[in-house]
Amino acid sequence: MADPVDMVELWRGPFLESVHRGHAVVCDGSGQILHAWGDPDQLIYPRSSCKMIQALPLIESGAAAAHGLRQEHLALACASHNGAAIHTDRVNAWLADLGMADANLRCGPQVPDDKDAKFALIRAHEEPCQVHNNCSGKHAGFLTFGKHMGWGPEYTEVDHPMQQEIRTTFSEVTGLETPGYGIDGCSAPNFATTVHGLACAMAFFATAQADGASAREKAAAALRDAMVAYPELVAGEGRACTELMRAMGGKVAIKTGAEAVFTAILPELGLGIALKIVDGTTRASECAIAAILVKLGVLDPEHPATRKRMNAIQYSRRGLEAGIIKPAVALA
Amino acid sequence: MADPVDMVELWRGPFLESVHRGHAVVCDGSGQILHAWGDPDQLIYPRSSCKMIQALPLIESGAAAAHGLRQEHLALACASHNGAAIHTDRVNAWLADLGMADANLRCGPQVPDDKDAKFALIRAHEEPCQVHNNCSGKHAGFLTFGKHMGWGPEYTEVDHPMQQEIRTTFSEVTGLETPGYGIDGCSAPNFATTVHGLACAMAFFATAQADGASAREKAAAALRDAMVAYPELVAGEGRACTELMRAMGGKVAIKTGAEAVFTAILPELGLGIALKIVDGTTRASECAIAAILVKLGVLDPEHPATRKRMNAIQYSRRGLEAGIIKPAVALA
Repeated sequence: MADPVDMVELWRGPFLESVHRGHAVVCDGSGQILHAWGDPDQLIYPRSSCKMIQALPLIESGAAAAHGLRQEHLALACASHNGAAIHTDRVNAWLADLGMADANLRCGPQVPDDKDAKFALIRAHEEPCQVHNNCSGKHAGFLTFGKHMGWGPEYTEVDHPMQQEIRTTFSEVTGLETPGYGIDGCSAPNFATTVHGLACAMAFFATAQADGASAREKAAAALRDAMVAYPELVAGEGRACTELMRAMGGKVAIKTGAEAVFTAILPELGLGIALKIVDGTTRASECAIAAILVKLGVLDPEHPATRKRMNAIQYSRRGLEAGIIKPAVALA
Repeated sequence: MADPVDMVELWRGPFLESVHRGHAVVCDGSGQILHAWGDPDQLIYPRSSCKMIQALPLIESGAAAAHGLRQEHLALACASHNGAAIHTDRVNAWLADLGMADANLRCGPQVPDDKDAKFALIRAHEEPCQVHNNCSGKHAGFLTFGKHMGWGPEYTEVDHPMQQEIRTTFSEVTGLETPGYGIDGCSAPNFATTVHGLACAMAFFATAQADGASAREKAAAALRDAMVAYPELVAGEGRACTELMRAMGGKVAIKTGAEAVFTAILPELGLGIALKIVDGTTRASECAIAAILVKLGVLDPEHPATRKRMNAIQYSRRGLEAGIIKPAVALA
């Protein structure tokens, strides 16, 4: 069991101010590790970085086709969105198509990160709805799957057949029987795996063919292609997933998760990536995934979306240069 | 040079999800270390945790007395406030007393953390002012000091006589010539020291007598007593410094700093504390300082203000219990 390695540093003036350690794995479709930092067998909660895995049964079951879900729906099912109108309008329409409404969701309300949406709520003296929750697209997918299967409404309970189906799928694509789960911010179970297991799952998404032999392979390709086609639905304007996916010109799908997890799917290289910053800080997971994507040659280190997170100048509130967030030696 | 030690853990379900490491020192007025975790000689930026040091020359110079500053002003000079009306009203009045206004500040604007103040700005379609900056009290102190001395307006420049005076004071009370500085979020220089040096300075504040022999000792006692007398001015409602100081019944002054620094002044025990979480995460510095204060017997582990930060249950957005933030073994 290797210790985590220094991955990201914050320098201020002449001195190192803060450091973030992590674990990361880059592997191919056979599970072969090409690069690893820290301990590949470190157990982690993928959190939202595995939403594409949680969405596989939605397609495999035939629910997505039966309900006429398009790429936009699938991108939202994989999304941690910022609650902007482009997200909430689509999720509301999706719920209406199901004959459902906000009250059918079980993700809980969340103040939207999107400034326009947030300010509009405040000015109207309104509270956020569940549809504003960054996971509302995933939950709309859950509701679609549950309706198709004729299951009960409490779909976030771990004993609900939906979560058991997701558990089985999760264990299969990670290549490792999950040892257990925790409750995610959206109240759904989040199944644990290793960094290597999560990277293996991402490599499966990377190598899946749209005309593949299995329903699962087709489902994985459809979700990956939807993420790449609609980067703005997967996160939102200003967000790392959206901006870095755009910077890579639609060649790579990436996904953040709470507590500083990041995954990436690289179809052209047939590779999957998973990383976890042990202290759970998002600024570090964003810098680290950017650094690994740069190392693999799929992200321009000088692109503004990259420089916003990697070798990112930190300013004082009056605009003076104060520091820099950059990859540590292991990722530089 | 000892490695940092695990200080704070986030557990979710049955598994450890995230870990924060840090350095901390508890020492007495002679600099003798009573407890240490990690490396006492680790160089850190104290950030806002040293505002009481930066305010010493304001009093020692006679500026505070000449301008009739009261305890409320001194508490604000040491504050990282949340921009609530109780803070901005007082800072605006202070600036007016100086014949100055928001434009004389050099801290830059900041969106207030206080919900009422923030929502009021949004509803009025107004931008925040410099007075909303969490450091505006410190900067009002700087302006008072500079006016008294007849110095120029660019008081945040490191070559300005004010910052040179602060540098000398800082080196003296930490017992260590500062090796350099970085630019803080409020654009003022922030001088580096060791965790032990910062703890020594806090022990000086703890042992300073109001009727002490030196002007510096009197100044230190005045600032410490002002912080303890006005906990709501040092931070604000809901904030760690305010709530934990209240929970300790006015016996201890504590102060947070950006990038997860925390200091504490314990007059009855004659002790000072400094800690730094290496990854810069505030949830961890708040939990760690609470754990050390509990260990020293000055904070009730079951007080709601403590339980909000130490052994703090984490909930999903629908209110389900999802995890806990707690001290690691070294602090438990």
